[in-house]
Amino acid sequence: MKSWLDEVTWNSEGLVPAVAQDAASREVLMVAWMNRESLERTVASGEAVYWSRSRRALWKKGETSGHVQRVREIRLDCDGDAIVLVIDQEGGIACHTGHERCFFRKLEGGVWHDVEPVLKDPKAIYGER
Amino acid sequence: MKSWLDEVTWNSEGLVPAVAQDAASREVLMVAWMNRESLERTVASGEAVYWSRSRRALWKKGETSGHVQRVREIRLDCDGDAIVLVIDQEGGIACHTGHERCFFRKLEGGVWHDVEPVLKDPKAIYGER
Repeated sequence: MKSWLDEVTWNSEGLVPAVAQDAASREVLMVAWMNRESLERTVASGEAVYWSRSRRALWKKGETSGHVQRVREIRLDCDGDAIVLVIDQEGGIACHTGHERCFFRKLEGGVWHDVEPVLKDPKAIYGER
Repeated sequence: MKSWLDEVTWNSEGLVPAVAQDAASREVLMVAWMNRESLERTVASGEAVYWSRSRRALWKKGETSGHVQRVREIRLDCDGDAIVLVIDQEGGIACHTGHERCFFRKLEGGVWHDVEPVLKDPKAIYGER
């Protein structure tokens, strides 16, 4: 029997991009990647689990930082090759830089400007490393 | 001199995923891909131009359908490998299926359900083909 996981159009690396959108502010917080197992675990646990392409490992969001994402809703697009997670962001910080979200750079006059504040020093989030 | 385009982390195919978010409703409408030229043209024209991976060609959104996306804001994420376009969606329809947005499928009880209406028959959008 075809599973809901088979309806996702995984790319040649077995991945699909996942957009995390804040349930309250509706802002796009981040874009990450998921493989089959990370999506399965996300659904089973109700908390976002991604696939880290750099570490080549499952990446439970908030595992170190505590900035867990509680999943309220999961959406799939028309051709099955992109996902939206509507989430509640624990701590109000999605980005490892300490910004609310990863999209804090805005193009203005041919320059990317940081237009959102750092809410918490990454050293305080992750500890001195 | 390093251009704003060089700050984008293009993948091995020279592409970056772009999330189109509606300026008014704040909904995530679609995820598409951009190459350098499509992003340049988007900025120059103020209307979204993507890269069609299936057709391997620049894809001016709305060229056939009239469902042009006027770009209000362009955001880049922390590691430069994803873009958000905040746009005004002409015609209120972003998806080729005639839905407001491509993310009309919601996971409920292990099944993807269509939870949003078709606003316009695709045959009426594109003509009989």
